[in-house]
Amino acid sequence: MGMESQGYVKIAAQDLKKLVSQLLERYEVPPDHGEIVSDVLVAADLRGVESHGLGRLYPYYISRFEKGSMNPRPDIQEKKSFAATFLLDGDNGLGHVACHRAMQKCIELAGTYGVGMGGVRNSNHFGIAGYYSMMALEENMIGICLSNSQPWVLPTHSRKRLLGTNPLSIAVPAGTSRPFVLDMATSVVPSGKLDVYRRKELAVPPEWGADSLGQASRDPGQILEGGGLFPLGGPEETAGYKGYGLSAAVDILSGVLTGSGFLSDVLSATLRSDPCRVGHFVAAMHVDAFMDVEEFKGRMDQFIETLKTAPLAEGCDRIYVAGEKEFSLWEENMKQGVPVHRKVWAELLGLCGRYGISPPAAR
Amino acid sequence: MGMESQGYVKIAAQDLKKLVSQLLERYEVPPDHGEIVSDVLVAADLRGVESHGLGRLYPYYISRFEKGSMNPRPDIQEKKSFAATFLLDGDNGLGHVACHRAMQKCIELAGTYGVGMGGVRNSNHFGIAGYYSMMALEENMIGICLSNSQPWVLPTHSRKRLLGTNPLSIAVPAGTSRPFVLDMATSVVPSGKLDVYRRKELAVPPEWGADSLGQASRDPGQILEGGGLFPLGGPEETAGYKGYGLSAAVDILSGVLTGSGFLSDVLSATLRSDPCRVGHFVAAMHVDAFMDVEEFKGRMDQFIETLKTAPLAEGCDRIYVAGEKEFSLWEENMKQGVPVHRKVWAELLGLCGRYGISPPAAR
Repeated sequence: MGMESQGYVKIAAQDLKKLVSQLLERYEVPPDHGEIVSDVLVAADLRGVESHGLGRLYPYYISRFEKGSMNPRPDIQEKKSFAATFLLDGDNGLGHVACHRAMQKCIELAGTYGVGMGGVRNSNHFGIAGYYSMMALEENMIGICLSNSQPWVLPTHSRKRLLGTNPLSIAVPAGTSRPFVLDMATSVVPSGKLDVYRRKELAVPPEWGADSLGQASRDPGQILEGGGLFPLGGPEETAGYKGYGLSAAVDILSGVLTGSGFLSDVLSATLRSDPCRVGHFVAAMHVDAFMDVEEFKGRMDQFIETLKTAPLAEGCDRIYVAGEKEFSLWEENMKQGVPVHRKVWAELLGLCGRYGISPPAAR
Repeated sequence: MGMESQGYVKIAAQDLKKLVSQLLERYEVPPDHGEIVSDVLVAADLRGVESHGLGRLYPYYISRFEKGSMNPRPDIQEKKSFAATFLLDGDNGLGHVACHRAMQKCIELAGTYGVGMGGVRNSNHFGIAGYYSMMALEENMIGICLSNSQPWVLPTHSRKRLLGTNPLSIAVPAGTSRPFVLDMATSVVPSGKLDVYRRKELAVPPEWGADSLGQASRDPGQILEGGGLFPLGGPEETAGYKGYGLSAAVDILSGVLTGSGFLSDVLSATLRSDPCRVGHFVAAMHVDAFMDVEEFKGRMDQFIETLKTAPLAEGCDRIYVAGEKEFSLWEENMKQGVPVHRKVWAELLGLCGRYGISPPAAR
């Protein structure tokens, strides 16, 4: 029972990247921009984050070029700069390109000042936050990336979706261990997980979301239609107000501070033809500014090893450290090919046909 | 039914601060250090965070001076400095003093570089994280404060306490609204909350913690004795691995990166006579480096107002924004006096007697 029998084809990562770049070029995206976007999207599928990978190429990006609601050739400008900090305007282009540039700038600044920090406004969905935080790793830096997104999450005590699943990511280099890479939505679960439960006609745990009256619900349909997701922690009793606070903090840094949209001013990429007004916030910290890099990496190895070898809870067979599962999948998928859902593959083949691009072979 | 009938006396905040300073002086704490500590401890009680206030003066601080396990006159040194970042060694002194100095330095650096960021190692328990993040507010800056602490929290899938309740705080200035102040432990609940349930012989929700086998438990005694707290999110099904990741990230920045203790190397203030090896991590960001301060404050007011006036969930009567409850309590307690539990008050009176200090009058 391989993945193929479950409805996936496997394509070599390099081939997929080339394909995405070729397609984006057809929509006037400059080649260097296309390369970044294809690398981010394929990285998501490589790391097993299917919900943020190639499946989004058409609905989140290409369809918006078709509607004319996203700018394929943005003029990304620095609107403000103050020694170690800066603010970019993404000019309603692909979020990947603007956030990539912002993180590059953070890394440069961190080399000079020990830390670099920047915001991006007027941007769009950028794929996985972990991609950008991980850019810092090879420079022996700690990377941080936040973004707001369209409303899905109910503030504690409210029945209105006002906050996004607002992800936060932090990536920390290690020595012989894999780096520590936390990349999490600040909701209990992403909305995509509810879609899966609905398709399978399963009830969800009552901590995942609420119906249109704001009452905890086990019916994924009620949560998706008119209800909303709970912030991390669930309802109040299990400290959902902490997840609500975290999500709000991500929105403040990504949206309020950058001059971008915030709360319900951030629009969905799929439903609207207006700019989404997404904002991002990134930072890089130079480990060397705090401690000898090799010493730090040794300490990180010890930190990670202590967690992984800790006594197990009954019924559990392994303790994971943030990012570990994704690195394993990445390795496997680099060897075996990236699993692409047949529906997504058909969509890509359709686009190839339209533009006379010869698609890569499935493995 | 005032607080007094529930076992509290009320004392004017200024009187309490003076008392704490006087007591600390008897233990060789320099007056300027004592002033900081008293301000932090009384701020906790003013804000309703009783678990981090005067009740800790004896067990967490004075008893450690008596044992000789904490340094009353630390020589806090800058071990490293790199433009916008730095590292302090707290010399096993009061955490309040070292973290206060670190945040002051962040604020200075943020004025020059847009952001300032620093770590503190070899420190001790410092009271409420929110005190330090809030120091940035009057400078029109955003303040961030993290700290590790002694192990209480189970990594997902483990039955061993390895992570502290590792708090994180972010304070953001606003205009006519109260500032946004998130100050949260990265566990579902603090251990003190389980003490309360145990005293009342009540069951706790199964998302709060686990027994010694790592199985979710509703018995607060089992969780406190040999078990442990779940990270924010609870068990795996409700995304407790996110709280686990957050708690680990706080420990990495506060402990691993600063050269302080991390995981189970951070010792409890009450059980040991060795240095606790607590580490802190602080940052300040100058709003003006990103956006005109008045414009930002207006946007924050709009952000906060939108949340507060959102449609209510059924059965709820109010939506709160992070820090709002604490500001209300602070205002009330500034007027009415700070509630001090009779047991804590008796402890303080005993110390006053020993040192010939005349205690302030209860209101």
